[in-house]
Amino acid sequence: MTDYRRLRVALLGAGAVGSQVAALLRQHADELADRAGARLELVGIAVRDVDAKRDVELPQELFTTDADALIVGSDIVIELMGGIEPARTYLLHAINSGADVVTANKALLATHGPEIFDAADQVGAEVYYEAAAAGAIPIIRPLRDSLAGDRVQRIMGIVNGTTNYILDRMDTEGAEFSDVLADAQRLGYAEADPTADVEGYDAAQKAAILASLAFHTTVPLEAVHREGITAIDASMMDAARHAGYVIKLLAVCERLTEESGESISVRVYPALIDRAHPLASVHGANNAVFVQAEAAGNLMFYGAGAGGVQTASAVLGDVVSAARRHIAGGVGVGESTLANLPIVPVGRVTTRYQITLEVDDQPGVLATVAGILSDGRVSIATVEQTVEQTVEQAVGDAGDSEGGVARLVIGTHKALEQDLSETVDRLAASGVVERVVSVLRVEGN
Amino acid sequence: MTDYRRLRVALLGAGAVGSQVAALLRQHADELADRAGARLELVGIAVRDVDAKRDVELPQELFTTDADALIVGSDIVIELMGGIEPARTYLLHAINSGADVVTANKALLATHGPEIFDAADQVGAEVYYEAAAAGAIPIIRPLRDSLAGDRVQRIMGIVNGTTNYILDRMDTEGAEFSDVLADAQRLGYAEADPTADVEGYDAAQKAAILASLAFHTTVPLEAVHREGITAIDASMMDAARHAGYVIKLLAVCERLTEESGESISVRVYPALIDRAHPLASVHGANNAVFVQAEAAGNLMFYGAGAGGVQTASAVLGDVVSAARRHIAGGVGVGESTLANLPIVPVGRVTTRYQITLEVDDQPGVLATVAGILSDGRVSIATVEQTVEQTVEQAVGDAGDSEGGVARLVIGTHKALEQDLSETVDRLAASGVVERVVSVLRVEGN
Repeated sequence: MTDYRRLRVALLGAGAVGSQVAALLRQHADELADRAGARLELVGIAVRDVDAKRDVELPQELFTTDADALIVGSDIVIELMGGIEPARTYLLHAINSGADVVTANKALLATHGPEIFDAADQVGAEVYYEAAAAGAIPIIRPLRDSLAGDRVQRIMGIVNGTTNYILDRMDTEGAEFSDVLADAQRLGYAEADPTADVEGYDAAQKAAILASLAFHTTVPLEAVHREGITAIDASMMDAARHAGYVIKLLAVCERLTEESGESISVRVYPALIDRAHPLASVHGANNAVFVQAEAAGNLMFYGAGAGGVQTASAVLGDVVSAARRHIAGGVGVGESTLANLPIVPVGRVTTRYQITLEVDDQPGVLATVAGILSDGRVSIATVEQTVEQTVEQAVGDAGDSEGGVARLVIGTHKALEQDLSETVDRLAASGVVERVVSVLRVEGN
Repeated sequence: MTDYRRLRVALLGAGAVGSQVAALLRQHADELADRAGARLELVGIAVRDVDAKRDVELPQELFTTDADALIVGSDIVIELMGGIEPARTYLLHAINSGADVVTANKALLATHGPEIFDAADQVGAEVYYEAAAAGAIPIIRPLRDSLAGDRVQRIMGIVNGTTNYILDRMDTEGAEFSDVLADAQRLGYAEADPTADVEGYDAAQKAAILASLAFHTTVPLEAVHREGITAIDASMMDAARHAGYVIKLLAVCERLTEESGESISVRVYPALIDRAHPLASVHGANNAVFVQAEAAGNLMFYGAGAGGVQTASAVLGDVVSAARRHIAGGVGVGESTLANLPIVPVGRVTTRYQITLEVDDQPGVLATVAGILSDGRVSIATVEQTVEQTVEQAVGDAGDSEGGVARLVIGTHKALEQDLSETVDRLAASGVVERVVSVLRVEGN
């Protein structure tokens, strides 16, 4: 066995990912040494409670509550605690102590990324965060390195496993959101408090990280437009299927070319995509990131977006990279944000839409609706009209709805979000529209 | 604009990829400088004939026939000439002159990789070759870096666009191989001499490169088992479809665990894969690499496998990486081949098979066939028998085939290739089998 130099590796956090990282570091120590060119010696694991139960059996003497003492003198610090504090303080401490750092902390990077990258730049350290964006899927290196000579035009990502699991089951089983969510919680696919996932907060953090990298621009979390999936119901899934679409929670990062110059848009929302699109066949809790680049064309990266051992794979890849850089010498590669493109609000984005309306089933209604759309600069691509009984008619009480209710499903050409939104308000107030059932964007040409 | 230091970039070759690389280097010069931290100055393009017509308009003064003079004093040398010589000599000259090198030359790396990587190691240079394996798809960095802390179990790649285009059209149109090939040649998807593609030589080179990286083992091209797609006909495609499969030319790189220890197998052949497998929906000339890793689970990388501008994207990503390393200082990351696993011949591989036989339609034939399989340690999973008229019967001349001919399609459980191959020989000689129609492996559990 080669007699390698030793690098001291400190681990902060021993949850689902952390304990797997510790186990794999020990289990594959010889192989990792050959690949890194150095023995990766796990010198300690900082936790809140040294006696807590772990997923994986690890030697008790590794555990400590004194993260700061552990950080000092470590060559590589792996932060897997999650949350903003004390993770931020520890990461900055590690960087300023001369360590390279590896983190999977998307919340921290999406909110304090520039501070952390700047600190690393100051001392020539490098921040590795492959596990922060889409679990085990290698997407950070492809964006940062492989596509560094290209121009990314657009990213569409399924970056949250919980919501994809829920939407996929709603699509395949025709089930309601709340039923599938309850089931997902029972099976461990969703947290007891599912807000971060189902309201799109988790996806928005990842979108901010991906957009920052892809467009060489600092994208603060607040600049990401965010909508969750709680309003999606079985009838919307059904209508989507009927029209050849599937509903996915998408993180869309897009380069826009306006007269005034280039800008970017970053947004997370449930959208319709064509069933023939590669993203449509991403099932269960899997993730996938679809990238359109000027020269490379269409690329897709697919895999497990979460899971302790899967995410540990991405973390360990980063640890090996950090070790190789330690051996090779030289300063780390910093983040490039020199493009600094302006980030536009969602109102300035153009996409296609599918608008579903309940209207009075009377002559002239379609003409009125079409007129309102046309006045609002929203061009109609397709219309489908179905007459349906209202609940009142079904129980024999027609109420004040003389001609019954018809359902209009309108597919639009590309329209400006702001125009669309104002137009939908006018439709709702027009007197012929009983109810705006849903307004969904259609993504992926 | 930031006042960056300049790096001298030399380009060898100005074909479909080279001329796009030159154009993009000039077109996006400012953006590339911001990303690389240095201006990438294209100082010259070495070609055989400075007056030849190019795909892209470039300043005449850049062209030279004196590659050696161009290489001396360059910081980064991009080799896009293809072929073994003089590419090999120029690359070694560039490395020994102190340049980092970028190449898309799969033939060279698959045959002289160790020599080139060793030369780079000696002087601390780095060899970048993202474009050598699957065109624009980032697969080299994910394997080398992102998965460096994991253990790759298996790679299944569609790594040749021409054959995927042909097989996809045969599948969707029911067309014959020769007709689609002729069409592909007309449309520019296949070369006038299609041997390198349709006989699997191109895929074998890529398989050698991917397996070397994934298993940290030098895989010489001669160790790659290779079969092409010229024997695939419309009836085989049809039978595959009927059974829920599609036929793809796969590069399979697999870690085997035998009693004597670990080894690897690298092979290229047309195989059946289930239509539900992600690789089955890779259409047209696209490529995709499906990776199974111990911790990360299943990953897939999808995109354009060829094309001048697409491949140029991968080359430029490498150029930016090389420039960043020049700025950062330190030695390059060498290739890791320390695992050096033995490479077993295809006879030692176990897969599932689909065997199609024409047999006499007489009682007891199936029992005889089943007995021969069982004696040969090949276990049957499914059998389908269809009776069909022979040409002789159809024209009213039954000849010596009294009971007509039946077709048996046998799906096996996993069997050792060597056992299977001997068993098929015994079937052919058994007297009850009129003809062995096809023997295809089934990949992807």
